[in-house]
Amino acid sequence: MPFSFELTGKDLSTRARLGKISTAHGTVDTPAFMPVGTQGTVKSLRPEDLLQCGAQMILGNTYHLYLRPGHETIRRLGGLHAFMGWPGPILTDSGGFQVYSLAALRKIGPEGVMFRSHIDGSKHFLSPQKAVEIQEALGSDIMMCLDECTPYPATFEQTKASMALTLQWAKACRQAKINPHQALFGIVQGGTYPDLRRQAAEEMVPLGFDGYAIGGVSVGEPQDMMYAITDEIAPLLPEEKPRYLMGVGMPEDIVYGVSRGIDLFDCVIPTRSARHGLLFTNSEKIVIKNARWREDHSPLDETCDCYTCKHYSRAYLRHLYVAGEILAMILNTIHNIRHYMRLMENIRAAVRENRFGEWKKDFLNKQG
Amino acid sequence: MPFSFELTGKDLSTRARLGKISTAHGTVDTPAFMPVGTQGTVKSLRPEDLLQCGAQMILGNTYHLYLRPGHETIRRLGGLHAFMGWPGPILTDSGGFQVYSLAALRKIGPEGVMFRSHIDGSKHFLSPQKAVEIQEALGSDIMMCLDECTPYPATFEQTKASMALTLQWAKACRQAKINPHQALFGIVQGGTYPDLRRQAAEEMVPLGFDGYAIGGVSVGEPQDMMYAITDEIAPLLPEEKPRYLMGVGMPEDIVYGVSRGIDLFDCVIPTRSARHGLLFTNSEKIVIKNARWREDHSPLDETCDCYTCKHYSRAYLRHLYVAGEILAMILNTIHNIRHYMRLMENIRAAVRENRFGEWKKDFLNKQG
Repeated sequence: MPFSFELTGKDLSTRARLGKISTAHGTVDTPAFMPVGTQGTVKSLRPEDLLQCGAQMILGNTYHLYLRPGHETIRRLGGLHAFMGWPGPILTDSGGFQVYSLAALRKIGPEGVMFRSHIDGSKHFLSPQKAVEIQEALGSDIMMCLDECTPYPATFEQTKASMALTLQWAKACRQAKINPHQALFGIVQGGTYPDLRRQAAEEMVPLGFDGYAIGGVSVGEPQDMMYAITDEIAPLLPEEKPRYLMGVGMPEDIVYGVSRGIDLFDCVIPTRSARHGLLFTNSEKIVIKNARWREDHSPLDETCDCYTCKHYSRAYLRHLYVAGEILAMILNTIHNIRHYMRLMENIRAAVRENRFGEWKKDFLNKQG
Repeated sequence: MPFSFELTGKDLSTRARLGKISTAHGTVDTPAFMPVGTQGTVKSLRPEDLLQCGAQMILGNTYHLYLRPGHETIRRLGGLHAFMGWPGPILTDSGGFQVYSLAALRKIGPEGVMFRSHIDGSKHFLSPQKAVEIQEALGSDIMMCLDECTPYPATFEQTKASMALTLQWAKACRQAKINPHQALFGIVQGGTYPDLRRQAAEEMVPLGFDGYAIGGVSVGEPQDMMYAITDEIAPLLPEEKPRYLMGVGMPEDIVYGVSRGIDLFDCVIPTRSARHGLLFTNSEKIVIKNARWREDHSPLDETCDCYTCKHYSRAYLRHLYVAGEILAMILNTIHNIRHYMRLMENIRAAVRENRFGEWKKDFLNKQG
């Protein structure tokens, strides 16, 4: 089945949308949040755990999988879905973001970016064509164009040049793409400059991608700047294509994005926080190592239906975390992912019932 | 339900026995192997995983749970079963072994042992009475008497004194025990001296414990010495009580123990090896990080029915291990535990069908 996106509802008081992405590996109800499976696994979870949490689509990192175990290895083993045993849709990034944030000795030119692996120092060249080739080998359902993620802060001139490169690479990715079953999304860059962002969107849209992402946010800029960019750019993206706010974010950022018409999100926050013992609940964020939970026999969140909340006490979770047990990471991750999935379920229900504006107000009040 | 043991079968060509232990938390088919749940969790597994692997009884470490989170905390949270969500029987050790192997500044006297915590250096005193008190707070189904685990090597005189202390402490534990639903096992020490071992058994048996363990093996002595001790001592233990060979061991050691009439085993080998990427199969031991598995799409063991073997390739397991992923530890542990449980199932079937002698010969031939 080829990729498609269907808009199934709109909220009247905000720009929130309801939709469904269809892929060769199943469908995704939007707005959706994708847990991050960096190295062919969402850290500490099995595919069954993700399904039980309600995850429909996950994200895989091209940079990591290219370096280890290698995209050709994964291709020969039947693609990323078969390799990691995940039956649902997968979106892969282009590898660009990790090249800029993890790798060493980066040299960016019009043809691509030269870098050294953070694992063994080996030298590699990532071009737009290569980014598509790797993602085609991985067999993801949604591929991302290679972009230059403009650092924050950057001057107008730097940002403009970077944006032009991203546009040029997007065209190259578009041409390189072969597999009709894999969708390809374009990425709107432009840093913190509204004019450049608008220009980027206007030049990217005519290239005719299957979806559009707002990139280069959540890279250190203030939260209100991220909100302003989302507010400005989302309406410039085609109504009938999915919109993806990359690397976002905290629950309140997701709620904001949805209210501005964003359909897709991904972030390491729920999984990474879980491994560091920071747990989301409907009423507060819990630092599980705190002594106050030592003999607390209640679940993390009385309102949560996750495996962790149904079976274990805060006291046990605290013990596991303090003792450095692997099970702490597993149970914490299950909870945080389910918390995010319940957030998205609540968002979709509110949009479906045309009460998202009010729901959002309540939600933000509760966040304090 | 009080503790009981029923002998249900005997092999004719060896001393292997078949039995059933009944406890307040369910029954255990013997010969049985107990996975080790040191700190209130069998590392990286959930209770459901253990059940799915076929585990019936697990071991908890009194020393660790006493120090963290504390036995009184666990008592207030409903006991160890409720705390960790494990529904089946639990055997707890006395804490002695870890005091000798992990803690610092040990001073042993007739009343007990003074030590410093390996976690924070705090000072503690473990007496026979205290060991029982802690285990009663934990609520385990089988408690172990505090013993002195004689180091290897030790002189005859040292060993003799140590053995006398263990006997004295066993009497004290017997007197301290209050809860009728928890069984208490005595431990036969005596180092590597057959005379002392025999004497220890002869003096321990009249004390009337619910079961008897052979302790102080698998502490560095040669394998044939462990075998000789087992061979010598097992027949001196009461026929109608379960016999437990503590801290053993490799599959071939377990098979040997069964052939000499042992009913219970525990060891960290399957779990610890798994976390280090050493995996047991019916044909070989696999070092999963080896490059030869890089693109091997077959399961770890074609004959294994575990979750890991049913869902993942050696190539994926190698990738997870090399990438340092938590899922590597989980999947490897599931496999090794299931491998041990299948071993015990095969042993019990062979004893039941009175062909254990032949089965053992075949098994040892395959081990090379």
